[in-house]
Formats: sequence, structure tokens, C-alpha cells
Amino acid sequence: MPGADLPPLPDLVVEPIVRGALLEDLGRTGDITSNAVIPAGTPISAVIATRQPGVVAGTAAAAMAFRLIDPAIRVTIERGDGTPVEPGDVVMRVAGPARAVLAAERVALNLLCRLSGIATATAGLVAIAAANGHARIVCTRKTTPGLRALEKHAVRAGGGANHRFGLDDAVLIKDNHIAVAGGVTAALMRARANVGHLVKIEIEVDTLDQLDEALAAGADVVLLDNMGPATLREAVARVGGRAVTEASGRVNRDTVGPIAAAGVDLISVGWITHSAPILDLGLDFDAESEPSLT
Amino acid sequence: MPGADLPPLPDLVVEPIVRGALLEDLGRTGDITSNAVIPAGTPISAVIATRQPGVVAGTAAAAMAFRLIDPAIRVTIERGDGTPVEPGDVVMRVAGPARAVLAAERVALNLLCRLSGIATATAGLVAIAAANGHARIVCTRKTTPGLRALEKHAVRAGGGANHRFGLDDAVLIKDNHIAVAGGVTAALMRARANVGHLVKIEIEVDTLDQLDEALAAGADVVLLDNMGPATLREAVARVGGRAVTEASGRVNRDTVGPIAAAGVDLISVGWITHSAPILDLGLDFDAESEPSLT
Amino acid sequence: MPGADLPPLPDLVVEPIVRGALLEDLGRTGDITSNAVIPAGTPISAVIATRQPGVVAGTAAAAMAFRLIDPAIRVTIERGDGTPVEPGDVVMRVAGPARAVLAAERVALNLLCRLSGIATATAGLVAIAAANGHARIVCTRKTTPGLRALEKHAVRAGGGANHRFGLDDAVLIKDNHIAVAGGVTAALMRARANVGHLVKIEIEVDTLDQLDEALAAGADVVLLDNMGPATLREAVARVGGRAVTEASGRVNRDTVGPIAAAGVDLISVGWITHSAPILDLGLDFDAESEPSLT
Amino acid sequence: MPGADLPPLPDLVVEPIVRGALLEDLGRTGDITSNAVIPAGTPISAVIATRQPGVVAGTAAAAMAFRLIDPAIRVTIERGDGTPVEPGDVVMRVAGPARAVLAAERVALNLLCRLSGIATATAGLVAIAAANGHARIVCTRKTTPGLRALEKHAVRAGGGANHRFGLDDAVLIKDNHIAVAGGVTAALMRARANVGHLVKIEIEVDTLDQLDEALAAGADVVLLDNMGPATLREAVARVGGRAVTEASGRVNRDTVGPIAAAGVDLISVGWITHSAPILDLGLDFDAESEPSLT
Amino acid sequence: MPGADLPPLPDLVVEPIVRGALLEDLGRTGDITSNAVIPAGTPISAVIATRQPGVVAGTAAAAMAFRLIDPAIRVTIERGDGTPVEPGDVVMRVAGPARAVLAAERVALNLLCRLSGIATATAGLVAIAAANGHARIVCTRKTTPGLRALEKHAVRAGGGANHRFGLDDAVLIKDNHIAVAGGVTAALMRARANVGHLVKIEIEVDTLDQLDEALAAGADVVLLDNMGPATLREAVARVGGRAVTEASGRVNRDTVGPIAAAGVDLISVGWITHSAPILDLGLDFDAESEPSLT
Amino acid sequence: MPGADLPPLPDLVVEPIVRGALLEDLGRTGDITSNAVIPAGTPISAVIATRQPGVVAGTAAAAMAFRLIDPAIRVTIERGDGTPVEPGDVVMRVAGPARAVLAAERVALNLLCRLSGIATATAGLVAIAAANGHARIVCTRKTTPGLRALEKHAVRAGGGANHRFGLDDAVLIKDNHIAVAGGVTAALMRARANVGHLVKIEIEVDTLDQLDEALAAGADVVLLDNMGPATLREAVARVGGRAVTEASGRVNRDTVGPIAAAGVDLISVGWITHSAPILDLGLDFDAESEPSLT
Repeated sequence: MPGADLPPLPDLVVEPIVRGALLEDLGRTGDITSNAVIPAGTPISAVIATRQPGVVAGTAAAAMAFRLIDPAIRVTIERGDGTPVEPGDVVMRVAGPARAVLAAERVALNLLCRLSGIATATAGLVAIAAANGHARIVCTRKTTPGLRALEKHAVRAGGGANHRFGLDDAVLIKDNHIAVAGGVTAALMRARANVGHLVKIEIEVDTLDQLDEALAAGADVVLLDNMGPATLREAVARVGGRAVTEASGRVNRDTVGPIAAAGVDLISVGWITHSAPILDLGLDFDAESEPSLT
Repeated sequence: MPGADLPPLPDLVVEPIVRGALLEDLGRTGDITSNAVIPAGTPISAVIATRQPGVVAGTAAAAMAFRLIDPAIRVTIERGDGTPVEPGDVVMRVAGPARAVLAAERVALNLLCRLSGIATATAGLVAIAAANGHARIVCTRKTTPGLRALEKHAVRAGGGANHRFGLDDAVLIKDNHIAVAGGVTAALMRARANVGHLVKIEIEVDTLDQLDEALAAGADVVLLDNMGPATLREAVARVGGRAVTEASGRVNRDTVGPIAAAGVDLISVGWITHSAPILDLGLDFDAESEPSLT
Repeated sequence: MPGADLPPLPDLVVEPIVRGALLEDLGRTGDITSNAVIPAGTPISAVIATRQPGVVAGTAAAAMAFRLIDPAIRVTIERGDGTPVEPGDVVMRVAGPARAVLAAERVALNLLCRLSGIATATAGLVAIAAANGHARIVCTRKTTPGLRALEKHAVRAGGGANHRFGLDDAVLIKDNHIAVAGGVTAALMRARANVGHLVKIEIEVDTLDQLDEALAAGADVVLLDNMGPATLREAVARVGGRAVTEASGRVNRDTVGPIAAAGVDLISVGWITHSAPILDLGLDFDAESEPSLT
Repeated sequence: MPGADLPPLPDLVVEPIVRGALLEDLGRTGDITSNAVIPAGTPISAVIATRQPGVVAGTAAAAMAFRLIDPAIRVTIERGDGTPVEPGDVVMRVAGPARAVLAAERVALNLLCRLSGIATATAGLVAIAAANGHARIVCTRKTTPGLRALEKHAVRAGGGANHRFGLDDAVLIKDNHIAVAGGVTAALMRARANVGHLVKIEIEVDTLDQLDEALAAGADVVLLDNMGPATLREAVARVGGRAVTEASGRVNRDTVGPIAAAGVDLISVGWITHSAPILDLGLDFDAESEPSLT
Repeated sequence: MPGADLPPLPDLVVEPIVRGALLEDLGRTGDITSNAVIPAGTPISAVIATRQPGVVAGTAAAAMAFRLIDPAIRVTIERGDGTPVEPGDVVMRVAGPARAVLAAERVALNLLCRLSGIATATAGLVAIAAANGHARIVCTRKTTPGLRALEKHAVRAGGGANHRFGLDDAVLIKDNHIAVAGGVTAALMRARANVGHLVKIEIEVDTLDQLDEALAAGADVVLLDNMGPATLREAVARVGGRAVTEASGRVNRDTVGPIAAAGVDLISVGWITHSAPILDLGLDFDAESEPSLT
Repeated sequence: MPGADLPPLPDLVVEPIVRGALLEDLGRTGDITSNAVIPAGTPISAVIATRQPGVVAGTAAAAMAFRLIDPAIRVTIERGDGTPVEPGDVVMRVAGPARAVLAAERVALNLLCRLSGIATATAGLVAIAAANGHARIVCTRKTTPGLRALEKHAVRAGGGANHRFGLDDAVLIKDNHIAVAGGVTAALMRARANVGHLVKIEIEVDTLDQLDEALAAGADVVLLDNMGPATLREAVARVGGRAVTEASGRVNRDTVGPIAAAGVDLISVGWITHSAPILDLGLDFDAESEPSLT
């Protein structure tokens, strides 16, 4: 099952993001609607349920949104990150002061729907790739500014894996770098001379000639960019296990199968983080609690 | 033209977001790839151009990303926020130290592509609505956590308008509020009694009966949720100018025309901020500058 | 009763302000006096009581000051925000480690005295206005830098209402804007064309001619600046319910009655936030707890 | 002249305060009024002038407000902190984009008016004290949360001096400390044993007996709280130069003369920071620049 | 005993430092090693014990590191700040989820080892000074950027005392100031005229002539810089109790005895904060808890 | 030459650290000594020179300290990071307002001396290792809380290389992890299954048996902990190029030669960051500029 046993992000990392999102929504005075129309102290219980099939992510962040608004809100996560869901499935239950629950609702849903959308998009590609080869689906740095840690976590929840987390944790030499450095070999030699023993070096190649040059110069990972399935197969053959192979470029639900079938190790795709639609989830008052309201 | 004369957001508001995005990408030591493979001081000039037709937004934030990395980078905005673009159109030009330009590239593009995607999605709906009625397209609070100010600005760049910026700047009474408050009239009376003279009061109604009740209780704006075109027309007729009318629910490129044709004043749509795909833009080295690199 | 059922500000909004105030006072090492002269662990209980008649505000912020210094301090609020008090009335009770109580005392009192001062000044004007007409007392943006949310809340505690919270939540066209825009009508037309459906538009007028022009151009609110009672009465008559009327300029305890009697809807006054003297409150050791100290 | 050669606060200390004040006012989108009614690029020049006699303070913070909004605004300070002013005197000149000048105006004035109010109140007491003795007027920790550094600077601008900046930079043993510590001597002995060689020790005494005890125990400064002029004179005589003498309690323009005449070294007063009314200053468009506007 | 009854720093001061240190170590995703190799929920108990003799400091910060990572970690401090320890002594016990304990371990130890190193270095000098005279060992501003409050606290834990905490809490006129000001007397006169009554004035003198000049001008403290023991003795005699005497320059375990024997009041030393080696402490799994692991 | 062509850290990463250090030292009012004794506007020029032989690091941070205090200070770096220096060598020149230069001096030196101390300690080990084998000297996570990025940069300036930057950028399985995971093979298998393709996996082994197990399980890097030279040689032979070899434990100037001679690839040492003494540098007024002062 995708995402089973997924380690959570540290609360210290998640909290500033959720706090910022709440302050952005509360503005200067908070939820003037709920404060105006709901009597103080009115209790409520509610569920957050899906309206679409997909894979859940972001439950910890959503739960934190409720608790940061009011520690008195009790939150129960019914289906944690990485769980496949069908329409109607309850993901979380919340109970507490109605004003507080409603003040946190939108931020909690914004986090949960977006991150579940990423997990769902990822899981779709993961399933197709798995049916066609051994390639893992990996994300890119094309993430939402400020949310990278959460979005990379959502990719993991969807069964994918993570590429670089930023500019500092691995070398990825792209076409522009090669142009400035004066070629594949020169770029790889400069890279090898300048980075530490724990840093892997990957290079983007657009042709089989470049691939040969990269392999000769000892790249750890080769990024086969925008190659068709036939070229990819040839590239994988030439690599022959001497480097990890990664395919990228125009990856979508139609193309991912043939790409995986070409035998690459990794398929990277920006779309799952920069353009995945949300997974629709909503907060509904709990049927059993409603009578007490009217 | 959508977005012409669009006032920019204050730099003081934008800067913390861009700074945070850069720090998120730089990590602890910055761009180890560029530092390793590109000699210090190598100059470069480049353009950011579109690969798809659309509407631009986020140029100020993208330009700020380059300048925050290195004030020596010169940035020229060729097509400002709100400008319609065709594939190949140059949006910005940047020139400066190659290491710095490449270190800022991804964050600048992440901002620009996402915000242009929102502007483009908005502009698409705006055009259809304008062809069918007088309705303005407005966004919701279903925005990316941390980016609301930028995303609402992108909606304006696309020719749309903004709904509430947060929980504190207008009253919007939704179905859950009505349930807890004990009905439309009770909710509106409580709201009127508790908010200031500059705050408008909007209420969501699901039926024509609720609409009648809302009008009688003096709502400033009525949110006609999930009504079909015929019901919407009837609703607009009943309102008769006594309130601003807003339609919402399942708004997309197929449905927005009939909704606008029903005569409503506003059509609100979450999709343009929560699920719009990015507009594809990329950074290319300037042809004229390339010779100096090799 | 002024302030009854006043919704509190969100803790997330108040906490950074109180935390900043405490750090400002603690400096690098905290309360060296209490640490030097009071043995660790000494318990104390104390009351915060008024020395003057007035209206209380700021109790949540003051209570938070004690709890942020030491969660072991127990705080009980006896008279919440908006409560009228007489000299000697106990507003809060605190009990806990003496070092911690004394370390938090000054910040708690600085918040409580200032905000209660604002509530008291407001309540004074509210009472006079209510005896002479229907006008509500509203505050301005002439607030203490960094404390606007708390001070606007204190105005509500005193029975007043709030005007704009900032530059972004309503349009207020003043004399300088009119001068630059080229007149009342031009300014109102530009405003109407450029802001959203939830934003009200107010304009300052200094003469009855300007008022006529503003009404013709459809202002939502007219700010009648520095007009005498007779002119105000005439202005209210001309408006005839077509706009909300607000009076401003030289409002004090002597002038507010006649202004209210002129029939305006709102009276705005900067003095209650920028120049109100504090309400004197002090912390006294609880008589019952003192014997255990000596 | 009060405040001549007054060293400015470090920009690094002032900037976060001014930035926070601007963000508080700008909200999410900035000055929607100026953006709506004033064409982009319209230039303006203006003066900030006094409406009342007083002493100026806060010019650096006010100038920073304009520059943080837009570095293109040129600011000239005509009368710096500590300068006495008469109605109509120009304190600052600003010139630049009209939208930016108006967006910064309120925050700049809020800082300038409040701090000048404190300087003015201080200067009033300083003049009376100087005419009656040698006492310096000193402020307390009863300052506005978040603004202590600026307000203590304003006191210096008014010719006053500063007492403790916080809980950590001097020992001040008050009545509550004495009660818990078990008496004046015990408190002073504990203090002496526990603080460093650069820390002065002050103690509050309410009676001449306590004063004798404090002097015998070697206090550096004695705070003579709420004593009448005759008692103060006797106290000063008993001290005989062995300690610095400070008077406090019910200090105002009526009482400060007799208190100073009693011969004390310092008179501390909370009123100048917690309850001083603002000094009225306003921004007016420069006459010479106006024609270009219309 | 050194450090007995040492008042702790306020949590509000310590927390941002510890939080920052944890975020620095956690990076974007936290402890990927522990998350990968240790099953979620595995409990562990461990001790932090010394490997070297010394004096403990930093226990509150270290304990906070564990609790900020996971409030479920139980921390017991066995030997608090200021306690002398021998190899093998247990300083703290921690018990809780193994992943969390190991994620916090390094930051907790980095704080504890460094601060205990400072306390140990201080205590070594304090003991020698006490055996030779009455001088207290005091630290300087040569502290680690960002850690001054903690390091000054560690000096107190080692039995030392603190000099200035920063540029703002006392006057210390050094050789460069004297050069610019035009001499000792001029510098002291300018200082006396410009600072408040609670601020002590210290001046660095390099010769006995400068000392005489400083005494005549009324310095509160004289810093006798780089004088040999004989000169120091003469200097102390000339001071004759009119000022506090402080020696500085080339202070180490060999020189501190003779310097103390010269009769100075204070000996300041930068080495204890800028160059003290850490005290070696390590975290070991508790023997009793280990069986449950294997 | 060590450190030649060392890429600088991003200013965005360094600035918050330097700003924080300055604010820590400035306190609430800044440099009261310089403000009191030096007339405003007095210019000064000065050099920062070494008193000891060593290797420089931290020049960018030190230069930033001066510029953040006052952009009018001109800073010239004469010997950049990684440059070997002899006593008397000028590292930086600064010229500008004397008050500002002296206000920034201590923070600039605290950064420069500490980081140069680390570079110097590193360079000493690097030279010995290079004379005995091919091993690189690498640092650990035993860095000063808050300064890790700067300290790791200083290690690079000294000719060393960096190990992990935090808990998230590589897997390092230590003895405690092995104990909890149930052995070397189990730990490596769990790690391999759970981390991404760009993450290298290192494991600590204490015995040759553990080494064999680690190699069989496919570790990328083996950390040979606390082995003597003979055992290290045997270990290197067993590895036979199948993994990177790293030695750690009791590394100092005496032991590093034999360890390097054993043929390991890396030698990690905590001492260079946690216990290196500072390199003594000082600021001296420029001889040529002094006459203008008197």
C-alpha cells in the first residue's frame, strides 16, 4: 500500500507553515462571521470526508491547524497519509467549540486538499509505472514556494520518491551548466573536484553521445531528458548498470507506461507538484451532533 | 485588456515570501552545482519566455528573486502582469553573474509559472463570462497557504476580481453557520448587530425560499450556491437589484457561460486558485550572449 | 452593557505581541532583581485591581503575559473586557512562583492599563453620544504602531465600533486624494472602477457642495469633516439615507453631544487611541497570602 | 537646548518596528484607495508640519517609514529629534510617487506624533525642574509594549534621562520584593551578593526609617516613593550624598517644582510615556508642487 | 559550591535559540536515518553522562531540545548547572520514542558540551583566583554570535561573574575611544555628561599615569590592561578603594594566580568563552532498557 | 593552496546570523560608549590584522557586520577565506564613521576569529594528512548551534571537506541505531528500502566483522570508529574499493598522520568545530588616519 509507515515530518518544520497560513486567513481580528453569528461556547462535531477517490496526504498539517486555533479542539485521524480513499470516506473527525472549528476549517482543508491532490496524482503514475517496469516516480524542485517540505512528503505519501530537496543536497548538472562549463566532461570533472563524499552527481544528457561522455566521466546518475521510448531503451542498455538512470520530459499518464517499460530506474515529473488538481474534501457537521444545534 | 494598470503589491508584502522561497531552495550552502561547475564571475544574459499562450502574472516576485540573490543581476520586465502572451514571447530579461542567475532561476520560475497559470485560468473564464453577461469572475479563500496575496493579485492580473481576503474583512454566512445560528434570518440579524459599518454581509442560500428570507433580512450580497441556470435567472429576478448576486458551485469553462447569461453580478470559482495548471515558462540563455561562454 | 459578549481576538494574533513585549522587558537575562532577592520557589498570590473608575480591556493579553513567563502561574479573570469597574474592583487574580509573577507584572499591567484606558475613553464618548442621538463612536488608524488589533479590540470593549483596520480593507478618499485625482466625482469614479464588490467606498467632504457631488457619484459613506452642528444637520438632511454619515474633527467630551444630536450615524475620533491616558491598575499581594511570606 | 547632539538609535533596532507597523497598516494588498484613485507615477512633494508647540522626536523612524515603502521617496529632516517647534514649523519634507507617500503617511505620523508627544511632555517637566533645582526627569518601564527603545529615546529628546531599560540592566527593589525578602536590609544583602560589578542597586523606600536602613545597607540609589516635599527635603539631608536620590509618585506639572526644590537628583515619572497626548503634526501637500497635480 | 542556586534564564529567551538549532539540524525532512532504521513507536531510555571531570552548564537548554522535538520525551536533570562532575556521572536521563530521542541527541549534546566546557574553564580559573586573592573571574563580549545569553549563564555556572552584556548596558572606554576622544579625562567627562544614573563607567588604562588621570576624573571601574603583577599591585594601591579594579590581558591558568594575588577585584578573560574546549558528554542507552530492544 | 576559489555562502544565508549577532550586542540602544565619547561624524580608518599564524575564514560575515551597522562603512578584504596568514598580515580594511566602526568591531571580530580558528585547526590536520596519505579531513555535526553553515564553510576554507549538513541529507547509521534496528544488515536493509536515489548510506562499524557485514549489505560509506592504525589498514584492505572509507575517533595532530597512512579516504574530526581555539585578530586604527583624530 502506498505510504504505509510513512514517517511524519517533524512538527517543528510543519508548525511555522500552518501558523503562517492561519495568520494569513485570520487577518487582524479573526473570523468575524463565526464570532457574529455563533454563540460563544457552542459545541460542534464534524467529519472531513472525501468527495473523490484518491490518496490522502497532509493530515498532520490539517490537524495542527485545528489545534493551533484552539487546543480544545479534539482531532482524530481516521485515514492517515498514504491511505487510498473512496468518495464518502471519513479522513478526520474534529470536535470542539464551533467558532474555533469553523475558523480553522478553510486552512485545514486548503492544506489537506492540495497535499492529497499531489499524493493522488503521484499514486496514479506510480501504479502505471509499476505495471510496466521497475521505475520509481520522483518529484522535482518545481514545488510551491514555501511548501516544499510538505509537498515532497505528499509525493512520498503517494508512493513516489524524492529527488533533490534544494540546490545544496545533490549536484544536478543541466544543459545550461554544460553550456557554461564547456561540455559534459568538463562539467563532471569540475563537479567531482568540488563536492563532498556524500554528495551524488547527476547530469542531464540530451543525446546518446552525451550519455557516453557522461558515463566515461563517472556520473552517478544520468538524467535522460526528453528521449523517446526507443532511445531510452538504448540508453539504458548503454548504461549497463554503471549509473542510475532517470527519465524526464513530457511525463503524464499516457507516456509514463512506455517510459517505465524502457527500463529506467527513475521517472521524474514536475506536474505532480506544480499542476496537480486538488483532491476534493469537505467538512460536514456530524449527523449525530446536529440535533443539539437547532 | 486584462490587468492593464494593475497596481503592484507592496514590496514589503512580497519580499518575505520570495526570501522564504529562496532560503527553502538554497538550503544550508546554496547552489553547489553552479558553484562547482561555473567559474566565479562568468557573466550570462538570459530571457524568460513562454512555451504556451496565456496571461502573465508574478513578474515582480520573479524579478525580486533574482535581485535578492544578487543585486548585481539586472532584470527587465518586457511583459508585465496582466499581459496576454503567445508561445515564444519574452516576459523578462536577466543579465548578471551566471552562478547567481542559475541559483535564482527555479524560484523565479516557480513563482512566475504558478501565478501566470492562475491569471491564465482566470482570463479564460473572464472572456466567456463577458461574452454572455456582465458577471465578474471572483476568487475564493481556496488559495495556497502562504501565497494568498500573490494569488489574489494573479486573479486580478487575469481580469478577475477578489472576494474576501480572509476571515476578517467581510461576513460570509455559509450553510454551516446558518445551521448553528438557527436559520437565515437569525444569522443575518446577529451579523448586522455585531459588525462595523464598513463590513458587507453576504449569505449563502441554497433555495429560492432562503433567498427570499435573506432579502427580507437585508443581506448586502447573496451567494446562490449550486443553482442551475433557470433557478439562477429566477433568483436574479427576485433580487431585483436589492442585493449583489453571486453564483458559485461547479464553475468551469463549460458552465460559466450559462451562469453568466443568467444575469448574476459575480461568479466565484475556487478552481482558478486551487487547481489551475501552471503556465509553462522557461529560462533560456540569450543567443547573443552565448558565444562569450564557450 | 458595553462589551458584553465581546468575542476575543485569536490567541495566534495576540501571542506574538505579548511575547515581544516580554522579551523587550526581560532583555538578556530576565528579572535580576527578583532572582536576586526572592528565593526560588517562593509562592505568591496577588490581585490586579483598579485605582480609578473605567472600563476594562486587555485581560486576555495580560493573562497571556503571566502564562508565557511561566505556565505554572494560575490566572483567573474576574472582570472581563468591557466590564465597567470602580476603584478597588479586582480584575484578575494570579497565583504562582513569586519570581515569575513579578517578572510578568509590568508587561501585564502595561497592556492592561493602556487598553483599559482606551476602553474607558471610548465608553465616555459612547455614553454621551447615546444620550444625544444614535451615532456610534468609531476609531481611526491613529493607533500605536504594532498594537492596532489590540487597540481596536479595546475600542469595541468600550462600546465603540471599528473603522478601517488598514489601508486594504475599505476605500477612504481624503482631501489629498481628491486633490490629486482632480475632484470628488473623478475620485469616486476611479474608486468604483477599481475595487471589489465587498469593499465599501467612503469619501471625505469638507463642504455641502462636495457632499452633493459625492452623493451624486454614489458614495457608500460620507465623512463630514470638521463641520459645525448646524452644517452637520443640514448634511444629514441632504443625505436622506442615501449613504452612511460619519462626522469627524475636534471630537471630545464637549463636542460629541451636539455632533450626535445632529443625527449622524458615526462619529470617528482619533483621540481615544492616540492620546487616551491609561486606566490606573496595580498588582497587590493578596492579603491572605501575605502571612506566609514573612 | 534639549536633545542637541542626541545620538540616534541604531537602524537595526528601529527597522523591525517600522516594518511591522507598515505591514500592520498595508494588510494583504496595500493602499487600495491611493492605488484606485491616483494614477501610477504621479509625483508629489509634501511637508510634515506641527499644529502645536512642542519638541520633536521620532524623525528617523518616520523617515524610515517612507523609505521602506519606496526607496524612491526623498526625505529631508528639517528639525531633528530634540528640536523645540512652534505651530507651522516644518519638521520633514518628502517628495516622490504620490501613491507611496500617501501609503506611508499614517504610519510615519503615528510614530512621529506619539514620540513627539512624549518628548514634549518630558520637556515641560524638565523646564520646571530646572527652574527649581538640579533634578533630572527620568522615565520608567511603563512604556508601550514593543516601543520601549523608541519611547526612551523620545524622553532623551525631551531633555530627560532614562531609568532601567528592562528587568536585566539594574536592580530595583520595590515594596513587593521587600515584603517577600523579609525587609530592606535582607533584600539589599541578597542583591549585593548576587549581581555583577557593573550593576547598580536601587531600592524603593516609603519611610525615613526604611531610608536609614537602606543607607546603612549600602544602596547605590534610593527611590523615595510618594513622599511630600518636606519629607523629601529631610530624606535628601539624611542621604547626605551617600546615594543618588530619586523621587517618584504623583509627579505632574503642578508637583514637579516643589519636588525638584527638595533637592533630589532624579524625578521619575510614568506619565510621560504611558499617558502623554500626541503632538499634533500633519502632512500637507507642498504649495509649489500642487499646480502640477491639477 | 559554584553555581548553587543559580537562577535559570527565562524560557522565552532560551527557546528561540534551541528551536533554531534543531531546525538547523533537522533540515527539510528531519532525521532520515532514525526514521529509516528504527520502527515507529520504539521506546528507549538513555542517560547523558560525562566522560571528563568538569562543571555542568546548559542542562535547561539540552532538556528543552528533547521536549521541543517531542513533548512525549521525559527528561530528568540529575546534576543541574553549576554542579561539579566526575567521569561517568549521569547529568540527565531521557526516555521516550527512540526516533525522537535520537533526533534531538546531537543538538542537546552540542549545547550541553559547549556550555559545560565554558563552565569548566571558568571554574578552573575561579579556584586558582580564590586561592590567591579575592578577585572574581568575569567574562567579556568575546562570545559566540547568537549564544551570548547562554554563554554568560555558563560563566555564572562556573562560579564566575558577568561583565557587560552588550554595548548598551555599561560604558567601557577602550584605547581606541581614548585616542579619538583626545585623552582619558576628555573621554570620561564626555561619558559622564551623556549617560544615565544607573550606568557605570569603566575605562581601560595601560599605564599608571593614565590610571591617575582616570581616578582624578572619577571612573567607577578601572580596567588595568596587560600590566604585570608588580605594576598591578602598585595600581591597586594607588586606587585605594576609590574605584573597582579589573585586570585583563593574557589571563590563563598560569597567570591568574599572581594577578589575583595583586589584589584586584576582577579578572576578565575572553578565553573562557571564545576558546574553551568542550566538556565531553555522551548519550548512552540505559542498560536496563536495552534488553527490550534486541 | 587551501581555500582558493572557495565559493562564498549565499548572502541570504549569512545575513540573518550576522544581523542577530549585531542585535544581540547592540541591545536596546546601541553603543553607548562610542556615542558618548566620540563626536558624531568623526571619520576613522582601521585595519584588521592577525596576531598569530593561521588560515583566514569568515571575511564575508565580518564585512557584512560593518555594512549592516552602517552602509557608509567601506570594507576591503585583503586576504580572503582560505588564505594562510602570518602575524601582522592585514586581512581587512575598514573606513567610515568612527562610532559605526567601533559599534561593529566586536561582532565582526567574534565571527572572524572563531571561523579563522576553525580554518586554522583544519588546515593543520589537512597538511599532516596530505603528507601521509590521500585522506581528506571532514567535519561533523558537532558544530555551534546556529552557526553550522558558517563553520562548515570555515572547514572548507581550511582545506577540509564537509560531512552531513544535518539529519536529512545523508544516512549515517550509528551504534545506537544498529542496536535498536537489530544489527548491521537489518539496519542497512531498512535504510536502503526507505531513502531516495540521491541519498548515500553510511554505517559506523566498530569491528572487522561488522565491516564485513556492512560491505556485504552494500553500504556506500563505512565509518571505521576508534580503530588503531593496524586495524584500519586491514579494514581498508578488506574494503578493496567497494566503499568509501572514513576513520573517526580520537583524531588529533598526533594521531592523524598514522590514520592517514592507513589509507582511508576520509578522516572525520569533531574537534575542529567544537573545540578549536580562536585565531587572534584585532582591529587597529590606521597609522595614516590617526593624526586627523587628535
